[in-house]
Amino acid sequence: MSDNSDSIQNWSCPLPLPHKDKIVLGHGSGGKMTHDLIKIIFWKYFKNSLLNSGNDAAVFLPTDTKTITGSKFAICTDSHVVSPLFFPGGDIGRLAISGTVNDLSMMGATPYYLTAGFILEEGLEINLLEKILASMQQAAGEAKVNVVAGDTKVVQKGKADGLYINTTGFGVISPGVNISGENAKPGDVVIVSGPIGDHGIAVLTARGELGFETDIRSDVAPLNCIISSIVEASNKIHVLRDPTRGGLGTTLNEIAHQSGVCITIEEATIPVRPAVSSACEVLGFDPLYIANEGKFVVIVDPVDASKVLDVIHANPLGSEAQIIGEVQSKPQDRVLLKTTIGTTRIVDMLAGEILPRIC
Amino acid sequence: MSDNSDSIQNWSCPLPLPHKDKIVLGHGSGGKMTHDLIKIIFWKYFKNSLLNSGNDAAVFLPTDTKTITGSKFAICTDSHVVSPLFFPGGDIGRLAISGTVNDLSMMGATPYYLTAGFILEEGLEINLLEKILASMQQAAGEAKVNVVAGDTKVVQKGKADGLYINTTGFGVISPGVNISGENAKPGDVVIVSGPIGDHGIAVLTARGELGFETDIRSDVAPLNCIISSIVEASNKIHVLRDPTRGGLGTTLNEIAHQSGVCITIEEATIPVRPAVSSACEVLGFDPLYIANEGKFVVIVDPVDASKVLDVIHANPLGSEAQIIGEVQSKPQDRVLLKTTIGTTRIVDMLAGEILPRIC
Repeated sequence: MSDNSDSIQNWSCPLPLPHKDKIVLGHGSGGKMTHDLIKIIFWKYFKNSLLNSGNDAAVFLPTDTKTITGSKFAICTDSHVVSPLFFPGGDIGRLAISGTVNDLSMMGATPYYLTAGFILEEGLEINLLEKILASMQQAAGEAKVNVVAGDTKVVQKGKADGLYINTTGFGVISPGVNISGENAKPGDVVIVSGPIGDHGIAVLTARGELGFETDIRSDVAPLNCIISSIVEASNKIHVLRDPTRGGLGTTLNEIAHQSGVCITIEEATIPVRPAVSSACEVLGFDPLYIANEGKFVVIVDPVDASKVLDVIHANPLGSEAQIIGEVQSKPQDRVLLKTTIGTTRIVDMLAGEILPRIC
Repeated sequence: MSDNSDSIQNWSCPLPLPHKDKIVLGHGSGGKMTHDLIKIIFWKYFKNSLLNSGNDAAVFLPTDTKTITGSKFAICTDSHVVSPLFFPGGDIGRLAISGTVNDLSMMGATPYYLTAGFILEEGLEINLLEKILASMQQAAGEAKVNVVAGDTKVVQKGKADGLYINTTGFGVISPGVNISGENAKPGDVVIVSGPIGDHGIAVLTARGELGFETDIRSDVAPLNCIISSIVEASNKIHVLRDPTRGGLGTTLNEIAHQSGVCITIEEATIPVRPAVSSACEVLGFDPLYIANEGKFVVIVDPVDASKVLDVIHANPLGSEAQIIGEVQSKPQDRVLLKTTIGTTRIVDMLAGEILPRIC
């Protein structure tokens, strides 16, 4: 596609928005008001030639992926409905970019392009929308990805909760990289990149549901840079996964099932901040099931475990990483926890719902 | 990625859903209930090895795109919030697949992969969800595309309107194909593939807002097959666009602005079904602004116009196609309508909102 970055200037209606402060149904009409909203508000934050072409789809030549032959592609999608929209350490915009960047990263893919689909509720303050878009821009900058296609719909007041954002990601996996949930092998070492449960407790705090204050901030962050550093350092990484909804306990269960192995972890080695631990105790929650948005699990051949741990430690996003366990052949499809009091218990997948709309 | 289609059998919990009839918040937990919902309900309709891998992203080798070198990629995204969920001739599921397939097609891309992100409202009947998934499966089959990655979120009752679906599409544009909104040239012929306004009026009928009955059915359909037949037949197609939200009037304005041309159309040649025409008259609507979901506009070099029209006519989706106008150099950025009474009027972009939540 030719460069259409100048197409912004081609439009004849750089008028002020007819409804300056709030989203109205007309912003979803597909007509002039939608075009104004996109050009005046959205393009301010996502200016790039692909997005701004004004066509039905973003078109690109995959020239920046030098060795396209032999490479694999990765695609993932994630809708974000977190409540409230802003919480300590982040907001729905940062979450929407990070979540999708991270899902691609966990397959060993380099994220290239993101799309963003917005469902806006009538009455949403444009001010607030702009804050969220600025946060998306910031996170996309950290991750060095571009939002290349977008969509905006508006629903009546009471038919959404402020806004929902879908982000879909497209990435490229270099030849030779084979990281997947079914690759865990007996003997492999299990690493977690830092303290668990921060995101869930931060969102809970923002909802005022804790009944007390905490200084916990969400860990929400794009992890592609730290992931690419460990994938470069070792070709013996078998599994990567970010323990989001469902928490570390559910994530490890998914891997144990996919690989047909047992994952045994030691409670004493799992990093949990004291404030998260206390909050969980008060609420009767297990930190193993609390969501994270800036942590990852690595399952790696023991030969490379300490090298990988060193690389993770060298990055501020992984400075508190720990080896928390290992993979065994039996009992298959199980996660076992060696507790601090010396017993062993089964860690099952999260059964019901403890924290709705955490992401 | 290895073929993981058997990973369905690996899961240990093929239990009946704990809540058989309705969506509950637990279905969005990311834990066991989410996994059950996905495996028992969603996989029934979207079974393919990429989707069912259980990983964070679908991974694929672009082997089916023989000449990847020189090809361009296309990505587009669309959130669907149509109300009601079912309407004569279609439903939100068929719309979600067709809309994204069509956006890719309008860039001359062959759609390969789709993602689907669902936002479900607590209390949504599983029965109804299944009907929508079956409709998506049917439309994806017609379009010969696979849904390779998905996401499911649940929000509380009153925070969505049944369900919303985002679909994002990935396609490949063969070398030499260059179809884009800025390519319209003076002298080009403008073709519309059939009667306009069916979708909008069908949805309005389903809402009971018309005050009378019509037999109008939505035209919602994937257009990739008919589009590929005309792209194969002519290398002189300059612009393709589907006149969805905002209707034909808005679509032609977009093209006129992008290409910096004038598009003149003749009212007498624009196909509109009598029932659509009557409904519009009663409601004070102009069919030019009513949404379509299975129609397209072709702007083509006059040399190939009749050949392209013949190919469109040969397909049931285009049997009522018409040449409706031509492209002129001036006045730039304008759409002009020669009316049946011999006057010429400016067709502007849709100003406000006439039919919210039409797609």
